[in-house]
Amino acid sequence: MLPEWVRIVEVGPRDGLQNEQGAVPAQDKVALVDALVAAGLRHVEVGSFVSPRWVPQMADSAAVFAAIERAPGVTYVALTPNLQGFEAAIAAGASEVAVFAAASESFSQRNINCSIAQSLQRFEPVMAAAAERSIKVRGYVSCVLGCPYEGDIAPAQVRDVANAMLQMGCYEISLGDTVGVGTPEAARRLIETVAQRVPRAQLAGHFHDTYGQAVANIYACLLEGVQVFDSSVAGLGGCPYAPGASGNVATEDVLYLLHGLGISTGVDLDKVVQAGQAIMLALGRHGASRVARARTGVGGPQ
Amino acid sequence: MLPEWVRIVEVGPRDGLQNEQGAVPAQDKVALVDALVAAGLRHVEVGSFVSPRWVPQMADSAAVFAAIERAPGVTYVALTPNLQGFEAAIAAGASEVAVFAAASESFSQRNINCSIAQSLQRFEPVMAAAAERSIKVRGYVSCVLGCPYEGDIAPAQVRDVANAMLQMGCYEISLGDTVGVGTPEAARRLIETVAQRVPRAQLAGHFHDTYGQAVANIYACLLEGVQVFDSSVAGLGGCPYAPGASGNVATEDVLYLLHGLGISTGVDLDKVVQAGQAIMLALGRHGASRVARARTGVGGPQ
Repeated sequence: MLPEWVRIVEVGPRDGLQNEQGAVPAQDKVALVDALVAAGLRHVEVGSFVSPRWVPQMADSAAVFAAIERAPGVTYVALTPNLQGFEAAIAAGASEVAVFAAASESFSQRNINCSIAQSLQRFEPVMAAAAERSIKVRGYVSCVLGCPYEGDIAPAQVRDVANAMLQMGCYEISLGDTVGVGTPEAARRLIETVAQRVPRAQLAGHFHDTYGQAVANIYACLLEGVQVFDSSVAGLGGCPYAPGASGNVATEDVLYLLHGLGISTGVDLDKVVQAGQAIMLALGRHGASRVARARTGVGGPQ
Repeated sequence: MLPEWVRIVEVGPRDGLQNEQGAVPAQDKVALVDALVAAGLRHVEVGSFVSPRWVPQMADSAAVFAAIERAPGVTYVALTPNLQGFEAAIAAGASEVAVFAAASESFSQRNINCSIAQSLQRFEPVMAAAAERSIKVRGYVSCVLGCPYEGDIAPAQVRDVANAMLQMGCYEISLGDTVGVGTPEAARRLIETVAQRVPRAQLAGHFHDTYGQAVANIYACLLEGVQVFDSSVAGLGGCPYAPGASGNVATEDVLYLLHGLGISTGVDLDKVVQAGQAIMLALGRHGASRVARARTGVGGPQ
């Protein structure tokens, strides 16, 4: 039984552009966010408030927040790993914030230099400050279907991390297949297991198309009752020249799936294709969406 | 309930290379077929016996059949639209032949210049000659989930064409989403409908990844009990520079799906990746398999 409606959380401007090699001018980011909202996307990750030493690509997030047009009914999200970032995000006008943890101890240690438990502790002040100001917090869990250091990750481990974030106050938990290794039955088992603690209505799927499985994994999650998916216009976020480069699944390809399944999204696919073409022109390379390539003759595989 | 075993019909050397712009030397085709068989593929489309005026890329099919190593237990298929082609294919040593029809009247008229009924009639002599020599005939139906001229195609129309081919003596009917427009629920409905006349055990799925849906469609067909899928090493068959170019789904990406689902294929994915890298090197461009790109850092989307 498929859902009638799915909400897309567009992560291209943050999760996507964060992984670009070169600096992207703030005005290009602003144009991208505005174009995505004009296409009907109602939930857009705009930037992050982290140390520019670690993520120089997002150093201008406040300027981007200041310049975007604000449309009614749209949630503009900022990634905020700590209280300082949270305060800056709210000052910049973020309407929602996001925090992240890994489902893999090794990945947590290598990526953010602390244990999973420590990472959860560190965003307690963010949760408290957000609760005080009635700001919603979205939680990301990475490596949910595999870890580059540990290999397989037990679904029960993901369930427990997701549940911890739910208990801390996150209204939605996005389960990320960071390395893109998952296949559909693993995705279904994951949802089944996580749903033992976190209601399906509070889960989102976040898939990478590294091994070409993202669309199939989303279909599997739809069959499991998941109704929210993260995706990235033009597949922004892949690193085209690195071996094993992971790319976020392209919003265009997800919309094509959903609309083909008769599921409403409120998003205009053609306008998303145009938004993707514009940002890829600015970046000087081709995007990874197969739908965009089929529609325009530019980009996609090859 | 997923099948435990799936048979891959590798179509890269014929369906793939047929759509390449330039001529591919026979020795490269021979090396490709031999490498695919060495990787464990047991059903390989080697070439076609059609007028070289129409398909110059396949004019050397007899030479390719003559030069490949013959491994025991491997089926080497030739596409044979008419009796002349059939005789040439058998003389060249093809172990099985294939015929094709469209599920769309407009596509049939524009592609092979006759109605669907006429196209079926035309291969009656092939069926008779094949029966006489105990040669198995595989049937392809194209445009099963959409037609570039007609748009949607009724599943009942596909069912009737598939059933006609079954009644004429084809042992297996491969259902081809030629333009790659299908999505998983449409694929499921198609299988359900066609299975009213053709047993699932005699159906194969043949998907193009034009809109990034092929792997999801294969997963949907697996859930419907289909156990045979056509695919093309490195996604050979796409035309990377043409708008709306359709590419066969890459064998590597299909194997990744199947093995991830715990389904046996008897095929060594790494060796298929190597075979794909070799032919793409010979062609002087990158392949479309995301798995191959993740494993080697070369090819795939952009």
